Amino acid sequence: MSEAWLQCNEGEGTWNAQEVIEHFIEAEKHNWIPRVESIVLEGEPQLFPAFDRFSHLKQISERSVEEALQEFSSIRLNNISTLKDIINSNPDLEKTGLHPEFGSVKLRELLSAWVVHDFTHITQIIRVMAERYRTDVGPWSAYLGILNRS
Amino acid sequence: MSEAWLQCNEGEGTWNAQEVIEHFIEAEKHNWIPRVESIVLEGEPQLFPAFDRFSHLKQISERSVEEALQEFSSIRLNNISTLKDIINSNPDLEKTGLHPEFGSVKLRELLSAWVVHDFTHITQIIRVMAERYRTDVGPWSAYLGILNRS
Repeated sequence: MSEAWLQCNEGEGTWNAQEVIEHFIEAEKHNWIPRVESIVLEGEPQLFPAFDRFSHLKQISERSVEEALQEFSSIRLNNISTLKDIINSNPDLEKTGLHPEFGSVKLRELLSAWVVHDFTHITQIIRVMAERYRTDVGPWSAYLGILNRS
Repeated sequence: MSEAWLQCNEGEGTWNAQEVIEHFIEAEKHNWIPRVESIVLEGEPQLFPAFDRFSHLKQISERSVEEALQEFSSIRLNNISTLKDIINSNPDLEKTGLHPEFGSVKLRELLSAWVVHDFTHITQIIRVMAERYRTDVGPWSAYLGILNRS
């Protein structure tokens, strides 16, 4: 896969494929598991640990996308194993934590949001990569849904 | 992955994940390579071989999604090898074929459309699978882009 393709984005302020992967890594490190543990170990009124959705933009990634994917893969496997241990301990899925913006959120909502968050950003990667072909597809562009989403 | 999750769709007339995979298989068999060959071997004014985008809905798939994925994987590998042979023969990428709806289309446009077609439907599978979590994510729904696309 060409470097140039991986560096495409959807315009100013949007992320390229590698930036999305760096965001996934940040979220694995500082968002999902820390918040799950915050609910299970403490719960309300303890506020969730902070997570900066833009932290991965603060320093430009100089590694290759393969290296980023390798880190993601390793931290993800680790987190799945941590999550399995937590689930096996039969936590109360209705237990709540305090989200800085939403207020009270349930453990089961947090777990569902993790899944759909990842789906959202996988779709974003595919959309950004499709963008590179916008004019190349000629008359097909009108029928290729991915080119017609904002 | 639960069978029920794979059977979710986005409402009447929409496809579930397995139906999209069956459509991919039909397109690998009857759309992309036959049309590439139609341009390379004949070209205009020869009309493209017909492709029915809904053929996979005509008989309900009774196989498992794993079996469908296995067929897709095998036919896809085959088609990639066929395509490599065609590309290695240095075809004229500007050569045209006759699309039943668009009229004259170039070989390079057809090849680009193949890529973006697959991206469109991969995104569709992810979107359909996210749908199952629409209410489960609670207050996150407003921020999860994949739940806010039509």
